Amino acid sequence: MRFLIIGGDAAGMSAASRARRNDPGLDITVLERSSDVSYSACGMPYNIADAGRSMDDLVVRPARVFREKQDINLLTGHAAETIDPAARTVSGRGPGGEGFSLEYDKLLIATGASARLPDVPGIGTPGLMSLKNLADGRAIKEYIKDKKVGRVLIIGMGYVGLEMAEALRAREIEVTMLKPREAFLPWLAESLVAVVRQEVESRGVKLLPGCALRRVEGGGDALEAVCDDFTLTRDMIIVATGVVPNSDITSGTGIELGSRREIAVNRRMETSLDDIYAAGDCADAYHLVTGRKTWVPLALRANRSGRAVGDNVCGRGVELPGIAGTSVFKVFDLEVARTGLTVSEAEQAGFEPARVEIKSRSRAHAHPGAEDIHLSMVGDKSSGRLLGVQMVGREGVAHRVNAPAVALGARMTVADFAQSDLAYSPPFGPVWDPLLTGAGQLLKQL
Amino acid sequence: MRFLIIGGDAAGMSAASRARRNDPGLDITVLERSSDVSYSACGMPYNIADAGRSMDDLVVRPARVFREKQDINLLTGHAAETIDPAARTVSGRGPGGEGFSLEYDKLLIATGASARLPDVPGIGTPGLMSLKNLADGRAIKEYIKDKKVGRVLIIGMGYVGLEMAEALRAREIEVTMLKPREAFLPWLAESLVAVVRQEVESRGVKLLPGCALRRVEGGGDALEAVCDDFTLTRDMIIVATGVVPNSDITSGTGIELGSRREIAVNRRMETSLDDIYAAGDCADAYHLVTGRKTWVPLALRANRSGRAVGDNVCGRGVELPGIAGTSVFKVFDLEVARTGLTVSEAEQAGFEPARVEIKSRSRAHAHPGAEDIHLSMVGDKSSGRLLGVQMVGREGVAHRVNAPAVALGARMTVADFAQSDLAYSPPFGPVWDPLLTGAGQLLKQL
Repeated sequence: MRFLIIGGDAAGMSAASRARRNDPGLDITVLERSSDVSYSACGMPYNIADAGRSMDDLVVRPARVFREKQDINLLTGHAAETIDPAARTVSGRGPGGEGFSLEYDKLLIATGASARLPDVPGIGTPGLMSLKNLADGRAIKEYIKDKKVGRVLIIGMGYVGLEMAEALRAREIEVTMLKPREAFLPWLAESLVAVVRQEVESRGVKLLPGCALRRVEGGGDALEAVCDDFTLTRDMIIVATGVVPNSDITSGTGIELGSRREIAVNRRMETSLDDIYAAGDCADAYHLVTGRKTWVPLALRANRSGRAVGDNVCGRGVELPGIAGTSVFKVFDLEVARTGLTVSEAEQAGFEPARVEIKSRSRAHAHPGAEDIHLSMVGDKSSGRLLGVQMVGREGVAHRVNAPAVALGARMTVADFAQSDLAYSPPFGPVWDPLLTGAGQLLKQL
Repeated sequence: MRFLIIGGDAAGMSAASRARRNDPGLDITVLERSSDVSYSACGMPYNIADAGRSMDDLVVRPARVFREKQDINLLTGHAAETIDPAARTVSGRGPGGEGFSLEYDKLLIATGASARLPDVPGIGTPGLMSLKNLADGRAIKEYIKDKKVGRVLIIGMGYVGLEMAEALRAREIEVTMLKPREAFLPWLAESLVAVVRQEVESRGVKLLPGCALRRVEGGGDALEAVCDDFTLTRDMIIVATGVVPNSDITSGTGIELGSRREIAVNRRMETSLDDIYAAGDCADAYHLVTGRKTWVPLALRANRSGRAVGDNVCGRGVELPGIAGTSVFKVFDLEVARTGLTVSEAEQAGFEPARVEIKSRSRAHAHPGAEDIHLSMVGDKSSGRLLGVQMVGREGVAHRVNAPAVALGARMTVADFAQSDLAYSPPFGPVWDPLLTGAGQLLKQL
């Protein structure tokens, strides 16, 4: 059987490795447009922060290991362009521009996502860059070095933008951040937003929310970002305004897409066409809380869904329950984490949400070094279900969010979650963990 | 209605406060033998570590706040001695040795636990001390100061003993630890034990497992701990060999006790006698995994069960599902955590356990500063249920254990837990969290 995979990053290589482990005799081919496979994309900001480190440190497993040790026909520099579901072929162009056409029995589309760029003039100006794949990371790092970049404008204030702000400040680069909407981190509860904003600004990052980029002019060492009321001149502009799923390859195939052009899959990662799977950032998922389709391109889902395809092409019938949208990022000394729904997401999904926002501490009463933990918790008035948790703090946030993430997977009520037997020791939190205090407060509103 | 509480620590004061919030008109009396109420007992080792801090820092809420702000008749220095269930009275002795007898409509026994002392000659020698209540903590701290203690022997190697070892090393005191059994931390998976032992010994603590204390001789500045093959001369001996429930007050009442003399309660904290509740370290609990009775004296359970009694005396009918035995302690730079059952506990409870032990990392591939995380996970072959998790590492352990703790509360299978949508970001763990890697490995054995 021929298993063909388009895309050699998290989902694609997870599928290839898993399928190989399941079936030593399988014919496995991976088509990867770039020269990089299997790297930690999320590690790029931290790598950029350290001028002395090579971007190649982020490669988890080099291409030759897949080729030599796992007998995977890994074709880098191969850009897949069209799928013919009737003929069961994928065609495209190889490294020299030569055409190729490959047959498959089972196909996985793992084309990932691309940086979403603002639709304004001058967006292709050299020195304006985005950060999605390893080549982007290398280019940014080299540009900083070659041009002795001292001042950077970041478009977007999401987690990638904030991680990049931290990375650039670590290199003593001046950072300004711009976004069209007024709200800084609009998905985060208000009292938590204030904490993050204060931290970011206290580290010398200038935040300009509510300013839309109209065009980019200039070039070389002086890019001009033109907004309505002012123009900023900077050495470099980084665009971090989110990503879009790479689903163009499905055009003409009849493969069903979602509202944001993400590829629709069922719990087995099957698309609407027989023997064609999709996984990773190009594909959608079920939300564990709403039960509805959602599109949240994150690394664990990419790896897990790729692995599931590697099982399913070998007949294992693995079904993934879905995602809770659990995520965490670090920005300077803060940890910012969420799982499940915000109040507005809960309303849109038909719940009747109630929310509490509390402030607790990261260590016990009188234990030295305690920091604030800000927590927001959302529950459903009609069912009593726990719907979501958000947290911000200097310690004890990143892993704490996993307890409610598990609770969401188990569809627990707030009342049941409030009875959780959590660990206590003075260096790690109060006797009543912030999660339990939050749940107790929220219960009063349900 | 008269609500009488015996014991003014975590469970007793939680009950008193909760009952007052529920019912402003309730007649609430608390009998506390010592002069301290509402303090963080678990914080004592950390307080002892710092010669400059007062032990009174650990008082969460002073007695006068309960008296003046909450209108609780808090009688310190009052030792309850007998309960007469027929007459509905509790009698004992007040601060001056005078007798008292108080009537109740609802009674809570929250007498806690006491240090278990080895049954050997000389155990009452001055300079041999244990650490259970605030008076113990003060006495140890004063003794260290007054006698300029330079060398201490700790009997017992449980978490209190280890926390004390760390505290004393922080004050540059020489520490030797002794216990009769050969196994260091017998409840911990073997590969994890080795990590903890190495850390403790590397900090200059001498461990002597397999050595039973036969008697204590000498006194003053030179206590002699006599074992079979040697005698150790030290300035001070701290006994940390666990605790026993304080249930003597039930004698003659007919209140049912468990095998270790802990007071048996149902999920509403009711004892076998009408209108008499028990909560905190003196009472038992249901185990969330086995469904059987267990006795695990820990702070969260004490607070939670006291609070439940404060609700139930006001007719709320609160039922506590039970405990998973989740706990964490810090020893030097290590975090050691557990939830649920060990293999031998699982066998005793009638499960058919399988276990994996894995080593993962605390941060992502190529992220600087990553440390090992050692994890052991236990599941049941016949039902597929997750039964327990243990972890040791220098970071990312304390809160990570709460995710499986929630899973145990929800009676999740290992397969379901393995699908949890956990948070990922390079500074906080690998894409596949150690918990997910462990669950994936364990699944292969189920």
